[in-house]
Amino acid sequence: MSFIKHGVLLAAVFLLTQPTYAGDRDARRTAEAIEDTALADGWAYDFLRALSSQVGPRLAGTPAMARGLDFSEAQLKALSLDDVHREPFPMTAWLRGPESAAILDPAPQELVIAGLGGSIATPASGITAPIALFPRYADLLAAAPGSLSGKIAVVTERMTRAADSTNYRSVNPMRRAGPSEAAKRGAVAYLLRSLGTDSHRLAHAGALDYEPDVPRIPAAALSGPDADQLERLAANGNVRLKLVLRPRIDPNAHSANLVAEIKGRERPDEIVLIGAHLDSWDLGTGAVDDGIGVAIVTGAARLIQRLPVHPKRTLRLVLFGAEEMEFSGAAYAAAHASEAPHIVLAAESDFGIGPVERAAIPQGAAQTEFGHDLHRALRRLDAELDDAPALYSGSDVHPLHKLGVPLALLRQNGLTYFDIHHSADDTFDKVDPNALRQCVAAWAAFAYLAAENDIDFRKNTP
Amino acid sequence: MSFIKHGVLLAAVFLLTQPTYAGDRDARRTAEAIEDTALADGWAYDFLRALSSQVGPRLAGTPAMARGLDFSEAQLKALSLDDVHREPFPMTAWLRGPESAAILDPAPQELVIAGLGGSIATPASGITAPIALFPRYADLLAAAPGSLSGKIAVVTERMTRAADSTNYRSVNPMRRAGPSEAAKRGAVAYLLRSLGTDSHRLAHAGALDYEPDVPRIPAAALSGPDADQLERLAANGNVRLKLVLRPRIDPNAHSANLVAEIKGRERPDEIVLIGAHLDSWDLGTGAVDDGIGVAIVTGAARLIQRLPVHPKRTLRLVLFGAEEMEFSGAAYAAAHASEAPHIVLAAESDFGIGPVERAAIPQGAAQTEFGHDLHRALRRLDAELDDAPALYSGSDVHPLHKLGVPLALLRQNGLTYFDIHHSADDTFDKVDPNALRQCVAAWAAFAYLAAENDIDFRKNTP
Repeated sequence: MSFIKHGVLLAAVFLLTQPTYAGDRDARRTAEAIEDTALADGWAYDFLRALSSQVGPRLAGTPAMARGLDFSEAQLKALSLDDVHREPFPMTAWLRGPESAAILDPAPQELVIAGLGGSIATPASGITAPIALFPRYADLLAAAPGSLSGKIAVVTERMTRAADSTNYRSVNPMRRAGPSEAAKRGAVAYLLRSLGTDSHRLAHAGALDYEPDVPRIPAAALSGPDADQLERLAANGNVRLKLVLRPRIDPNAHSANLVAEIKGRERPDEIVLIGAHLDSWDLGTGAVDDGIGVAIVTGAARLIQRLPVHPKRTLRLVLFGAEEMEFSGAAYAAAHASEAPHIVLAAESDFGIGPVERAAIPQGAAQTEFGHDLHRALRRLDAELDDAPALYSGSDVHPLHKLGVPLALLRQNGLTYFDIHHSADDTFDKVDPNALRQCVAAWAAFAYLAAENDIDFRKNTP
Repeated sequence: MSFIKHGVLLAAVFLLTQPTYAGDRDARRTAEAIEDTALADGWAYDFLRALSSQVGPRLAGTPAMARGLDFSEAQLKALSLDDVHREPFPMTAWLRGPESAAILDPAPQELVIAGLGGSIATPASGITAPIALFPRYADLLAAAPGSLSGKIAVVTERMTRAADSTNYRSVNPMRRAGPSEAAKRGAVAYLLRSLGTDSHRLAHAGALDYEPDVPRIPAAALSGPDADQLERLAANGNVRLKLVLRPRIDPNAHSANLVAEIKGRERPDEIVLIGAHLDSWDLGTGAVDDGIGVAIVTGAARLIQRLPVHPKRTLRLVLFGAEEMEFSGAAYAAAHASEAPHIVLAAESDFGIGPVERAAIPQGAAQTEFGHDLHRALRRLDAELDDAPALYSGSDVHPLHKLGVPLALLRQNGLTYFDIHHSADDTFDKVDPNALRQCVAAWAAFAYLAAENDIDFRKNTP
């Protein structure tokens, strides 16, 4: 076979394996141009530097969060986005107070802890009690009612590293449900090993969920090395701790979701919603969780706003104002319930540091022209489109999903995310500018293609 | 040339390049046997686990250090070492109190700091002042007298990573001398970026040296990310901080050096001294600095004690009781000045995590039988003996060196040591059990060979 014949055959095979439709060539080209611009653009990184230093931590319901809203609103207006406005909502704020923990016996020493969001306070003089230590959460659940009476329950199970959120979700009940499970068994307080994958003396914050009709007990997370220390000492004999947690609850706090749009040129009443959360835990500066998400979706909206022609559908940007304590998604869905049928797709960016590796869109959409165009755009960024549909995309858009809004999910690599998640180490130096640019590129291409498309994502949605 | 002739030539070259003496074959064999035992032995790791958990932090002059002395004395006695005793000394203790720092303008947020050992306190209400930020320590030194009047001086120079202590020594004046240098220029307080190579929200403690006749100002170290944050904000405009440091000075404190011996079988009045420091900073648990050193030298002494025949010279183990605030070495040298001529060699283990990579002994000794035997023993552990002499071996044995005592130094790899040095991250999980076993092997072989030898290390000492 001559080289020429060989070449002709290869060309034929190539053509035969191509999709049988062309897609929207202009949209595809525009998406690629947006990606190229994003990959060379430092705006999101600069924005994030400013947000995480000129504002810093942004605990929902505090003056710090109010500054975060002021700062971000000014930024959105400076980008000439349409209809920049706040949608305020009431919330109960949890405000960290003085907190400390120490081993009293057998070897007096300080422990590094972080009170859990929503935890009640101890008395000002603290709680002093022996511990009952469980190396696994299942061991606590297996303990008999009353067996922890007068004790501080301590669970030291480890969260292991993974690229996705599987492991975080599997240990999450330790933090969410652990306090009430310990209380049911008589415990006077609850400590858990931080849900994190690092080994530093930094505790990871996070919210708890008290069960109704169960006594509420104070609860906090230990740093990993402190959990190790308690394991070693408990293996050797009795351990007595003192725990002081003095948070304050403000039932009359408020926050707001910050909204901006790029009005659709053809079907402005059809809305592609992209979001992230502006609030953060108080220990770090919210650079990663979820400053990166805010920078990604805002950076994506900025690139689409700067196009000579806006997409057909409206692109709506929502910076949610109280994700960590789970108020903002419910508030948004309640305020927009009647509009939900017009929200054609919703996606939230809230997974930290790494590049986008995989995306998922509503059931069946991967096989459409839109899906193929998106896949092609993602492949240029070393990411893939899954066939499996997106069933979750972030806690702020989930209430919309319950109202029937289809979801998309752009999964970032999270291998190191839980090293710093919810801890004091969530600072700007942890941000990888290259990964951030790739994320903006992926989100901008995705949002543009979804807004420029006619596809009805609900068609195949269960 | 035939292969046979070639082989004969090679053999001849080999013989000609061998040392012209055989060394003490029995001593060499014993050293190798000690190494093999050490490499298979978990005693030092178990001891260190117990010390760093059942005692924990051991700040000199505190009840915690007293517990450390009790614990260690009991351990030394259990090892059947000779003449286990304490040598108490008075000291001024510096006791950390409540401390905090916060940015007030332009973006209120907490900073992570650690007061420097020896620092005076601020008023209870703290010091509130604008900052003058210097990206390099030399910039502060170049500032004119009076130019920092009413300001908090902040130096944000970075310590970079190295396998040895070169970089630590080069930035050390930032912490030691910085407070007085800032005060000379009018500053009301002093902050520096922690001398450390990590990027976590953990500050690294350490002592300062106030200059006589210069006003004393409060001083603390910032975590790396907090120093970054101040750099970003200062680049953008004025920054105002509040600093609260409430340490307490106890001029009537005391500590002790803990001593044990293995009496020499032939020349018991000649002493090979190996030491490490038992005290630690308060933020971590002193597992690495210098729990590892204590475990290494005690582990080495234990292996030599268990030999069927003790070495010719006396091996003396000294666990120093106040290295971090620099009291124990001076106290030891003062108490043993008249004995100094009988201390034939002194060495301190105080460089953390890594394996021994290089050793240095007194001038000229590398070329002796002892040097060759030691080199051979070290090579079995992937370590080398330097030709250059040991000029320093640790701050506790340096006062002895000034009295004429020759030094030896076993250098460990310190590439990651300054990630955790003096910080809360100095915990047992950071200890590498394999490196620890190798260190015990190297120290035990070294100490045995030095004590079994006749060499006069002073002969060539300047």
